This record gives sequence, structure tokens and C-alpha cells, in this order.
Amino acid sequence: MKVAVTITLKKDVLDPQGKVVLHTLQNMGMKTLSNIRQGKYFEIEIEETNQEIVKKDVDSMCKKLLANLIIEDYKIDII
Amino acid sequence: MKVAVTITLKKDVLDPQGKVVLHTLQNMGMKTLSNIRQGKYFEIEIEETNQEIVKKDVDSMCKKLLANLIIEDYKIDII
Repeated sequence: MKVAVTITLKKDVLDPQGKVVLHTLQNMGMKTLSNIRQGKYFEIEIEETNQEIVKKDVDSMCKKLLANLIIEDYKIDII
Repeated sequence: MKVAVTITLKKDVLDPQGKVVLHTLQNMGMKTLSNIRQGKYFEIEIEETNQEIVKKDVDSMCKKLLANLIIEDYKIDII
């Protein structure tokens, strides 16, 4: 089973990398652009067909390694 | 309008960062895990309500700055 994990910074956490991308694109002429925030993305393949077990396993991976829960949120999607 | 852009490495491009995460998680006991590939994620806000224009603008941002089309694919979703 294939799972997509999207990790984003929490709303109140500053994102200097996103700001650099934002200003660069604005300087390139994208006038309607108002905000960009950067995150991480993982595509995970698991040898398991039970959707509940997969979700539980991936949730545990996010908590233990992939996401920093103090500053980041994560979202798990079966794809 | 808010748009999510997911950038992933093309299938045949090596992903050493993903491999490190994979091996770390396997060493932490995730035995069913078979593969992980890492990508980038952007959440973009645009002051424009016409979905076609938004998609065209974001497509142009990906081509010009966000993605390296030689080694990466990108996916645009209105959220």
C-alpha cells in the first residue's frame, strides 16, 4: 500500500525558506501571489493491505521521526 | 485561492535522503516498510478567483523556479 505524508509548519511558525521563494517569485513578476509556505512530502510504500494498520504505522513513523510535532503538523493520505 | 504543489523526484532518479529515512525507520523496527521517497511541498495563496488563471500561473511558477524538470515531476491541486 502506498501512503503520502505531507508535513507542514504550524500556522504561527515562521517560514524563512518560503519567504525567500515568495519574494523571488514576486520579483519575477507574479503580482497576484500573496503567500507561500514550504513543507515536506514523503511517499511511503508498506507491505500491508489492512488500511487501519497502515495508518497506525505511518502515524507512528510521523510521531517518531518524520515530523517535529512542536513546530509541524502532518497529514496522511492513502494513495 | 489556495493551491498545493507537490514536487517529487522522477522514478529513475536516486533519492539518497529518502534512503536514509527508510533505513532509519527500518532500524527502528518498521519491518513492513519497503520504500520511501522524499519530495517537496508548497502551499501557495494567490489573489485570483479564476481557477484556470491560477492553474496557469502556478504551472509557470513550477516551470520557472519551484521544480527542476530534468529530475522532478510536479502536481498542482486547488485546495
